[in-house]
Amino acid sequence: MSSRNHMAPFAVNIDLNTGHIGPPARALTRRLSDLRGLFCDEAAYSALTAAGDPVVYEVYEVRVPEEDGHLLSCTTIIHPGQVGREYFFTKGHYHLSEPRAEIYTCLRGEGYLLLGNREGESRSIVMIPGVSAYIPPYWAHRTLNTGSHPFIFHGVWPGDSGHDYGSIEQAGFPLRVFEERGRPAVKASAGPC
Amino acid sequence: MSSRNHMAPFAVNIDLNTGHIGPPARALTRRLSDLRGLFCDEAAYSALTAAGDPVVYEVYEVRVPEEDGHLLSCTTIIHPGQVGREYFFTKGHYHLSEPRAEIYTCLRGEGYLLLGNREGESRSIVMIPGVSAYIPPYWAHRTLNTGSHPFIFHGVWPGDSGHDYGSIEQAGFPLRVFEERGRPAVKASAGPC
Repeated sequence: MSSRNHMAPFAVNIDLNTGHIGPPARALTRRLSDLRGLFCDEAAYSALTAAGDPVVYEVYEVRVPEEDGHLLSCTTIIHPGQVGREYFFTKGHYHLSEPRAEIYTCLRGEGYLLLGNREGESRSIVMIPGVSAYIPPYWAHRTLNTGSHPFIFHGVWPGDSGHDYGSIEQAGFPLRVFEERGRPAVKASAGPC
Repeated sequence: MSSRNHMAPFAVNIDLNTGHIGPPARALTRRLSDLRGLFCDEAAYSALTAAGDPVVYEVYEVRVPEEDGHLLSCTTIIHPGQVGREYFFTKGHYHLSEPRAEIYTCLRGEGYLLLGNREGESRSIVMIPGVSAYIPPYWAHRTLNTGSHPFIFHGVWPGDSGHDYGSIEQAGFPLRVFEERGRPAVKASAGPC
């Protein structure tokens, strides 16, 4: 086999009900204690973390070379829950190589995709099954579960994208979503919280 | 808005049962007459084309700039059917920029993903709902429906991939799938047919 064809085709099995992907996918679990400093209600955060430190989300990532021309993919399962009135969310990130897009397709549940860029623009997209959202190059993205069941989506992004979590950890995300009178309300956020 | 952020986020709605994507996706229909010379049984091909020229497959493509860093995506719906004993299939292609991967995720129905490369290697992957197949850089790919219902999958590929259909039109695909005793049988193919 020539070197340029060193990689053989393969397939993984996505459970379309649970979002789980079997081997060789890599499972990653983010508990509330992994998201320190990101939620607004610090008292609620401390209480919840002390009272069991719940799993906020799981990621099943299909691993290929993190190189130009390849495509990384994963499922993300955000569990239902709130920290105070703020819905459980993912850390949120820019791509380290910023001119790299991403596609999120909702399989189950309901949630939001939040987007922001370095020019201060922001957008929110409601995610329900079948919604396939385009995250253009240069846009940071965070997802959150506004429902009472797991919110599950499939993501695909270029192999050479990389992840920059630090920008969001430091500056916060420009939008936040809180429960108000039983419904999600999207709010502009002035800072880390 | 700065020029580097000229593109705003957006979303499309994929009907997870039918595979249809609403606007702004572009619909493309391939009838049997669009696949001249690709199936083995020429008599069956002529008869079927004359008797109504059935739709073999439909594609709903989400359009973004065909540039490095962007991601193209589509759903493909291959209808059930055969030309003689050969199952309805897609044209099949290499990427024009060959070092570009693609991911196919089956949503409904059943079929095969066939793969081949210029070194003469070939692979087949059975596609059922939830199977997410990785088409590595440099591998040509064709899909086919072996079931009695529409076979529906979602595909994502880099914006600067391009399509080379000519190589497959001229040389044929290295694998073919025929019905034998009611079941699909994968066969090595020596040429265009």
